[in-house]
Amino acid sequence: MLYLIIDILGAAAFAISGVLVAMEKKLDLFGVLIIAFVTATGGGTLRDVLIGNKPVFWMLNPIYLFTILGAVILAILFVNQLKFLRKTLFLFDTIGIGLFTMVGIEKGLEAELAPPICIILGTITASFGGVIRDILCNEIPVIFQKEIYATACILGGVSYFLLAMTPIDSAYSYIVAIMIVIVFRLLAVKFHIALPNIYKVKK
Amino acid sequence: MLYLIIDILGAAAFAISGVLVAMEKKLDLFGVLIIAFVTATGGGTLRDVLIGNKPVFWMLNPIYLFTILGAVILAILFVNQLKFLRKTLFLFDTIGIGLFTMVGIEKGLEAELAPPICIILGTITASFGGVIRDILCNEIPVIFQKEIYATACILGGVSYFLLAMTPIDSAYSYIVAIMIVIVFRLLAVKFHIALPNIYKVKK
Amino acid sequence: MLYLIIDILGAAAFAISGVLVAMEKKLDLFGVLIIAFVTATGGGTLRDVLIGNKPVFWMLNPIYLFTILGAVILAILFVNQLKFLRKTLFLFDTIGIGLFTMVGIEKGLEAELAPPICIILGTITASFGGVIRDILCNEIPVIFQKEIYATACILGGVSYFLLAMTPIDSAYSYIVAIMIVIVFRLLAVKFHIALPNIYKVKK
Repeated sequence: MLYLIIDILGAAAFAISGVLVAMEKKLDLFGVLIIAFVTATGGGTLRDVLIGNKPVFWMLNPIYLFTILGAVILAILFVNQLKFLRKTLFLFDTIGIGLFTMVGIEKGLEAELAPPICIILGTITASFGGVIRDILCNEIPVIFQKEIYATACILGGVSYFLLAMTPIDSAYSYIVAIMIVIVFRLLAVKFHIALPNIYKVKK
Repeated sequence: MLYLIIDILGAAAFAISGVLVAMEKKLDLFGVLIIAFVTATGGGTLRDVLIGNKPVFWMLNPIYLFTILGAVILAILFVNQLKFLRKTLFLFDTIGIGLFTMVGIEKGLEAELAPPICIILGTITASFGGVIRDILCNEIPVIFQKEIYATACILGGVSYFLLAMTPIDSAYSYIVAIMIVIVFRLLAVKFHIALPNIYKVKK
Repeated sequence: MLYLIIDILGAAAFAISGVLVAMEKKLDLFGVLIIAFVTATGGGTLRDVLIGNKPVFWMLNPIYLFTILGAVILAILFVNQLKFLRKTLFLFDTIGIGLFTMVGIEKGLEAELAPPICIILGTITASFGGVIRDILCNEIPVIFQKEIYATACILGGVSYFLLAMTPIDSAYSYIVAIMIVIVFRLLAVKFHIALPNIYKVKK
């Protein structure tokens, strides 16, 4: 139950981030709706397609559709107020990332895939909604440029598999891994931690 | 049989619209061909992948491939004449949208999915070929900006499920829903009906 | 064994080409990694998704992941030296294309699809990694504009099916088809062979 609530809060937060990007691009109502839907479901959809789970997750329970619809309507109505909620949204978004990472890993394990593949699936689940959003809006995905986003997912995933080798109960490992994703991302954004620069500094 | 003919006319019309966009972008022969193919099959392909129908529909019957090849060759040869056929093409395109919407809904019902999910599948079938075409050509998909396109698909889909609750024979509902998509789109284009504006009018 | 070695060399060459494009776009470390991964695996992934092979190939053997990781690290470390290896890289890349084409055709035959569909699958396997790379980097795919790339795949595929109608052993046909793709591409690049121009020459 708690699981479902967080999952839906995550989907809603992702949908709202989609609305904000789409409205900046001045898309019409339908465009905003589809971008929100794709941002919220794209990562899980790609994961399910790659694994071969069928049909993809949001087809089996219309609650995802209605949650996203509700979030879009609220976001459009209160778009000006959203600016003051930026921190709350960022927190939802980050919680969503943490949870979606572990959902993806879980689905990989269910399909009996190797740990590195599961970590990739977790990262895809958490991050490809945003990638598809940016492609549809004709931008280079923000995640490829400066966000520490995916690194947090990978760290969380690695932690989970390391913890799984200890005698710690797997339910705890699960929660600890989610917390690692969330805390790492919050710290990275707060202290402007970035990946090591691979380009020669030009002077 | 009639069904197959309309389906193929729809694919041909979509392929031709792909040729026109690709030639505007000055793509080479292969680029034009692939954009045409993707425009004609992309919506149905995404639908089949999401549902998990395998393999995707155009692999099972090479007639789609040959129809598209034929349409591309004709379109390239007669590209100047196509300007005078703009209305005919638009009509084919619109018929294609109506039919593809119901094909998508039908496939959703076969997979025993809920009505709102079926309507999404219908809309995807009718509209994502054009979306993928625009992404490949590095444009923000036109459907997100001004077209009433998807709204027509959704309206038709909703009508179908409303009619299905009446004692009307489902074959009639099917045809009526297709007509609604077609008529609504024709009227919307003729009378410049657009979605309600969600942006503050700047003065 | 030889098969696996060439397959992995191909993946490595594709990954390196991804690194080069991504670094030109100044993506961060993760961006470079994902572009490399997508370039190396995108074609085969799309093929598996369209056929409905599940899960997609690189999930079943982590060697692909580690090969790509290794190639990316080497490519980033030696990016300046890579300029002098351009010919070697091009050769790897071309070998990769030849092999990937036949791998795709083989997978189509296993799924009992018609020859033209198999040829499409071969071409997708060999070329869509590059297409997805270009879409993610917000470019019109280079393959749609000037490369003779896909034409080589199609020619190789057609040759394979023509040879299969002769009494020649299918193992030979397989190798001959790969050679045709490779030789045709090398010649096309060397002699600047392009597809026939479909646009009126403006003066």
